[in-house]
Amino acid sequence: MLLYNSAVSGNCYKVRLLAAHLGISLELVELDVVDRSNRPGLIGHLNPALRVPTLVLDDGRPLAESNAIIDYLAEGTEYLPAHRYERAQILGWQFFEQYEIEPNLAVARFFKLFNVTPSEETLNSKHAGGDKALQALERGLTGKTFLVGERYSVADISLYGYTHVAAEGGFDLSPYPSILAWIDRVAAQPGHIKIDG
Amino acid sequence: MLLYNSAVSGNCYKVRLLAAHLGISLELVELDVVDRSNRPGLIGHLNPALRVPTLVLDDGRPLAESNAIIDYLAEGTEYLPAHRYERAQILGWQFFEQYEIEPNLAVARFFKLFNVTPSEETLNSKHAGGDKALQALERGLTGKTFLVGERYSVADISLYGYTHVAAEGGFDLSPYPSILAWIDRVAAQPGHIKIDG
Repeated sequence: MLLYNSAVSGNCYKVRLLAAHLGISLELVELDVVDRSNRPGLIGHLNPALRVPTLVLDDGRPLAESNAIIDYLAEGTEYLPAHRYERAQILGWQFFEQYEIEPNLAVARFFKLFNVTPSEETLNSKHAGGDKALQALERGLTGKTFLVGERYSVADISLYGYTHVAAEGGFDLSPYPSILAWIDRVAAQPGHIKIDG
Repeated sequence: MLLYNSAVSGNCYKVRLLAAHLGISLELVELDVVDRSNRPGLIGHLNPALRVPTLVLDDGRPLAESNAIIDYLAEGTEYLPAHRYERAQILGWQFFEQYEIEPNLAVARFFKLFNVTPSEETLNSKHAGGDKALQALERGLTGKTFLVGERYSVADISLYGYTHVAAEGGFDLSPYPSILAWIDRVAAQPGHIKIDG
């Protein structure tokens, strides 16, 4: 399979991490995350939103959106339970991730990694939104080993993607003991790879 | 089933619309979308993100996130195909909706409906982001009757929620002929209900 990838993107990392667990080899095509001018030509026919990750299956069919991609790849494996209610809980966490975690943690990290200086209003908004999201994640993880069904699943992969590098966006995770313990549990899973490795 | 609801929320409307198609009756509990101070007590034990919609199934189990809720309710019905690739395409559109449509179209609409005056920077950002999202949706709908598999599905319900009331947030849909035609097709589906009815 071919993955239009960004090495620094937590969204792309989700796909690489699950692929490592599943023993799927990915051909990576690296796209620039700052200069996006070549994206319409490269992936416009594959993903109208022009974002990475975009996956191309071996038969040429494309898939967009990190969480949709990993749920597709995990179907029928231990990483996505067949149980209807557990699947809905997993999706609930994944939508929360794209709505509350990613737009704050990933964007604040992007500013730092690429030396972008946003307005004070924007930076404050990202930090307030990110802290609110981390508080919700902490509540969701309190007393649990993993997000859904006490088993490591694609929900954990989705939330781990940007949460474990929150410090790179200026977030302090020390007020969140349940998140910190869960990060260690995710990193200890068999077949785990790092975001930069 | 009991739905913690907001009458003006496009996210809650998705659940009410699918429930109308499926003949599911919902007991509605209306929550204030401006003063959210009572939410920890009301739904903190059901949804750590404290958002509406939050659904409580007849056996008491809760579900969070509009798109996760409608996918759960649609399982096994004509509104959610069993085909693995089509399901991944549906999820792709639903994650796009929560990442690019909702944070721009819904928030711009919220400002107008509740007479909130955001900073010029925030308003410009919402309008630029919303237009970019609508352009992607227009590309995705060009030459198609519905988003996935040429059939009305939960993907269309998810995207319709806020797109059809984009004008209430100050967006002009006239540059998007494929979106406009699709809005009419969705509204013509058997069992359709309006956001305020």
